[in-house]
Amino acid sequence: MQANQENIQAMDELAQRLFPICRSLTGDGVRETLRVLQKRIPVEIHEVPTGTRAFDWTVPKEWNIRSAFVETTDGKRILDFADNNLHVVGYSTPVDETVSYETLRQHLHTLEDQPDAIPYVTSYYREDWGFCLEHRKFEKLDKDADYRVVIDSTLSEGSLTYADLVIPGESTEEVLFTTYICHPSMGNNELSGPIVNTFLADWVQSLSERKYTYRFVFAPETIGALVYLSRHLDHLKANVVAGFNASCVGDGKDYSYIASPDENTYADRIIRHVLAMGGTGFTPYSFLERGSDERQYCAPNVGLPLVTFCRSRFGTFPEYHTSLDNLDVISGLEMNNSLKVLQRCCRAIEDNVVLKNVLIGEPQLGKRGLYPATSKVGEYEKVRVLNDIIAYAEGKRDLLAISDIIGAPTWTTSRLADELVQSGVLAVVKQGPHSARHGSATKS
Amino acid sequence: MQANQENIQAMDELAQRLFPICRSLTGDGVRETLRVLQKRIPVEIHEVPTGTRAFDWTVPKEWNIRSAFVETTDGKRILDFADNNLHVVGYSTPVDETVSYETLRQHLHTLEDQPDAIPYVTSYYREDWGFCLEHRKFEKLDKDADYRVVIDSTLSEGSLTYADLVIPGESTEEVLFTTYICHPSMGNNELSGPIVNTFLADWVQSLSERKYTYRFVFAPETIGALVYLSRHLDHLKANVVAGFNASCVGDGKDYSYIASPDENTYADRIIRHVLAMGGTGFTPYSFLERGSDERQYCAPNVGLPLVTFCRSRFGTFPEYHTSLDNLDVISGLEMNNSLKVLQRCCRAIEDNVVLKNVLIGEPQLGKRGLYPATSKVGEYEKVRVLNDIIAYAEGKRDLLAISDIIGAPTWTTSRLADELVQSGVLAVVKQGPHSARHGSATKS
Amino acid sequence: MQANQENIQAMDELAQRLFPICRSLTGDGVRETLRVLQKRIPVEIHEVPTGTRAFDWTVPKEWNIRSAFVETTDGKRILDFADNNLHVVGYSTPVDETVSYETLRQHLHTLEDQPDAIPYVTSYYREDWGFCLEHRKFEKLDKDADYRVVIDSTLSEGSLTYADLVIPGESTEEVLFTTYICHPSMGNNELSGPIVNTFLADWVQSLSERKYTYRFVFAPETIGALVYLSRHLDHLKANVVAGFNASCVGDGKDYSYIASPDENTYADRIIRHVLAMGGTGFTPYSFLERGSDERQYCAPNVGLPLVTFCRSRFGTFPEYHTSLDNLDVISGLEMNNSLKVLQRCCRAIEDNVVLKNVLIGEPQLGKRGLYPATSKVGEYEKVRVLNDIIAYAEGKRDLLAISDIIGAPTWTTSRLADELVQSGVLAVVKQGPHSARHGSATKS
Repeated sequence: MQANQENIQAMDELAQRLFPICRSLTGDGVRETLRVLQKRIPVEIHEVPTGTRAFDWTVPKEWNIRSAFVETTDGKRILDFADNNLHVVGYSTPVDETVSYETLRQHLHTLEDQPDAIPYVTSYYREDWGFCLEHRKFEKLDKDADYRVVIDSTLSEGSLTYADLVIPGESTEEVLFTTYICHPSMGNNELSGPIVNTFLADWVQSLSERKYTYRFVFAPETIGALVYLSRHLDHLKANVVAGFNASCVGDGKDYSYIASPDENTYADRIIRHVLAMGGTGFTPYSFLERGSDERQYCAPNVGLPLVTFCRSRFGTFPEYHTSLDNLDVISGLEMNNSLKVLQRCCRAIEDNVVLKNVLIGEPQLGKRGLYPATSKVGEYEKVRVLNDIIAYAEGKRDLLAISDIIGAPTWTTSRLADELVQSGVLAVVKQGPHSARHGSATKS
Repeated sequence: MQANQENIQAMDELAQRLFPICRSLTGDGVRETLRVLQKRIPVEIHEVPTGTRAFDWTVPKEWNIRSAFVETTDGKRILDFADNNLHVVGYSTPVDETVSYETLRQHLHTLEDQPDAIPYVTSYYREDWGFCLEHRKFEKLDKDADYRVVIDSTLSEGSLTYADLVIPGESTEEVLFTTYICHPSMGNNELSGPIVNTFLADWVQSLSERKYTYRFVFAPETIGALVYLSRHLDHLKANVVAGFNASCVGDGKDYSYIASPDENTYADRIIRHVLAMGGTGFTPYSFLERGSDERQYCAPNVGLPLVTFCRSRFGTFPEYHTSLDNLDVISGLEMNNSLKVLQRCCRAIEDNVVLKNVLIGEPQLGKRGLYPATSKVGEYEKVRVLNDIIAYAEGKRDLLAISDIIGAPTWTTSRLADELVQSGVLAVVKQGPHSARHGSATKS
Repeated sequence: MQANQENIQAMDELAQRLFPICRSLTGDGVRETLRVLQKRIPVEIHEVPTGTRAFDWTVPKEWNIRSAFVETTDGKRILDFADNNLHVVGYSTPVDETVSYETLRQHLHTLEDQPDAIPYVTSYYREDWGFCLEHRKFEKLDKDADYRVVIDSTLSEGSLTYADLVIPGESTEEVLFTTYICHPSMGNNELSGPIVNTFLADWVQSLSERKYTYRFVFAPETIGALVYLSRHLDHLKANVVAGFNASCVGDGKDYSYIASPDENTYADRIIRHVLAMGGTGFTPYSFLERGSDERQYCAPNVGLPLVTFCRSRFGTFPEYHTSLDNLDVISGLEMNNSLKVLQRCCRAIEDNVVLKNVLIGEPQLGKRGLYPATSKVGEYEKVRVLNDIIAYAEGKRDLLAISDIIGAPTWTTSRLADELVQSGVLAVVKQGPHSARHGSATKS
């Protein structure tokens, strides 16, 4: 409880610290963001030069921006980057001109349906400049006036920045957690992912033992994921048993996840179980609804066993990709709830084993001290779960599959399975899932 | 559109030309029908002598009829074969007698529920004579009178007549189209099948290239199919990748098909996709609802991968097997719509390939000219389909399976897949379905 | 009909004969019960000494009881074992004391919700004494009085008693029928099971031929089943093709069964078919709802292909485990209906074969005398079933699977399949199910 309260407050503070920074695919905003995270977890920060190939893609020029504004010719400021970094189209080329309304309008982006929202717009792969503003403000512009437009940005050779952290465990088999750090001042998409994964890494480090190695990646979306994959693909394909990409995990809406194309990798099985047993309801999306970095981690010829974990999936909440996705949308409380889901995923993986009955016929629980002497509330349920674990532990199913069948969460069954192993009723056949560990090979 | 109008009119004309001919299992009506079709497509006409064995069956005697009538003794004609060839029970033996009402009644067939319809009745395997008439007319017969009954028919050694046409393609693998030509003056069942398949053959011939060989069979139902199979079974089993039997394809009702026993042969997969994507709704029937020549082509120890394509399935429309199934029930317009379904099946087969991604990670569509420069309506949908094809093209699924998953018709995906292959994003692993080509081996 | 009436009356009489006997895990009540059954079927009765190991369990002391009562100090009898043997907690140790109300109350069991019912309570594995009575009677006890409690029982070295009967057939492959004989005066749970299985054994013996060997086991629940398994496990695993445990089969409620863990063993397939085709509706329960001896016969490392057959499943009817489960709950009529279900299971197993078409294409039924000359009601249905059997008899499916597909009961299809075999249309590929005979290997 205490830890919860501390986490919640610390997450809120981290969100406030990171929110104002102007992040993009590249540039100092990304670097600053990663250095802030580095104060909490020992991520390693990497720089990849402009022009570096990553499969079909190339690392773009680095973009930085100091200031930007639009003014009337008599100096009245229409909008200012200093107020909200969404006012400038990401990757805008530098400009300092006085232009007519007609010309200006070609470079303005608004949302007619959400007249008080500044849209989030980028132009990564076509060199251009532009501004984003509230439609209500746009409608009040004097159509006969000229305007001074200034963007003090640089777009030049530089590097793309990402960070990772590998926390070793007993096995070289890895659990992968990814998220992206390229979105400017927006909360749910995407400060929530980096914050939750930072706290998750902190927690993983604090565990007294780890059966698996844990890898955390904080990179710009798409090109960052591709760069990371291009550097680590063989290793990841050989070692990752399950991966979880976090995106939009800070609002208070129902949980959801985007399945892998296979829909039945170890990661799919784990998150489906954890969300189903969590008791809060959840929405499973098919890979057809993809849109975040699962696009790269699950891409053909990559095919990692990874799912994307969300609350409101990107694109489904009204504040998405606008200035309305601010700190009011997210909270430390809800980021902490999302953290707990990923912690349960970790525990489910750590605790998963294939179990086998040692005895023939039902065991006599009483003589082994497993049958309650007195009938307290909850004890009958415990005996039911004990007996159901025994009934389905035939040496081929893993605890996860048994738990799915008997309708009990792994965070209960793993403790009871331990008791049964200690009592000589069950034996552990192997650590991990019941079949080969990767991708489609883990179909149940 | 022009071609459509021409087809529609030509189909209507062909229906009018064929309707009056008295067809049966054998005889000159079949020959005349096939010669009419021969004017449009170069079918080869075959004669199989009476007594020839076809598995468990034997080619029956040949039946021909010149005239038939029932008269009162004072010469008032009650019914006349010249008015409607359904008036005579098919395969009626010759007769020229004066009989009592009681005797006559033993030889009359009517439909009490449809008093204005002449039923369609045959007696292929029991030698007898009979007449069919409207129940309303039957009720008015004078029960005390005698009647003269005349059937000027012959039932004697002769032959069974069928036609086929093989249109070669690059491969010896075949697509089979069957229908039957043994029904007298009825429209939906069964002038529609022969007419649609004739125009389909015409279209197949007109294609500038064909990956597959196409085989068309026009034969009497049951015994004709068995004769054909007995002559070609090994060849068909070795070469047919998918077969489609056409029956009752001329009315304007929803589409339907009768699955193979396996329910998942290549033919099942193709027609299910084409009908599902057609947007008009359709009824899938199990093989338990069989009734046409799928009974033979899918019989045990035959087992061709064939489905029957229908609009209103035989037996489900009120005019079925009566004189009410006349030219009003069918139309060139609707036969042309059915034709388009089978053309789509052909195209789906021609265009089906197993696809594999060449690149690692998502490709950059923009630099390959596949991403729309301007956002027109429909362009976003195109990009979605392009990306979905890429996401699911992992070297094992065929385009048909990918299209089913992503919910896009093969007539769209095949064009886009071509673009992706041309752009070096995808490679073709093999022509055809993802697994072995026959029967149950093609389960997806 | 006559046989039915005789069975119904004889079942009623057997129920009346067995009802008063005080059965328990061990003791003379069990012996007497088995000797009564022995008058009808030649079961062999076995004695297993106290202390004998059965896997994780040990045969307990033998318990016998002559009399028991509770009296006021002035000799007014509160309850008497002679009235209802449920009044004494099973396995009560001997006692003869005068105790206060407070002390007595610690040893009394009642049901507040069913104040007129005596509950059924046992204390097999903790030595103690106790009485059970109606809650209404309990409430009237004088709280200030003392009471004399007498239980004239013995709990000492002795033996556990069970019976079995093996009725040989052509094959050493076995069909197993089990039930339990350890419940005192209660009807549905559990006189119905022993009575139905006794009459089933009688019927099996009367069959003129048996393809399979039939084994019947009448043993105390849990420890009796474990003792039986410990003596016969290898034999049973090697020979049992399907097993049926009978419990609560005497009331007039809908049929139900408890699936094996695998849910698709031969026993599951058989009973599912028989109940589905019976036309009366039924409830399938998962193994998660287990509670009778399927717990042992389907236990890990035992894994026999066995289901439990019930009407109202144990625990689901209000009279369960109380004195209200008396002879009014069950009837000879309903036990006879349950008997018929198990007879159909036997017949389905005896008659099940894998079938294959001999001919190519559809056979000509007419020339083989299989097509009705005249169209009587029911004849068309017969032809449909004949044709459907032929359509699906491709050499891999067994008659049970074919019957499931075509929606006809095996008690119809087996007769028609015989006709088709006699006519040379079908051939029998093998006796029995389509795949290996045991447990999960029989998945369809």
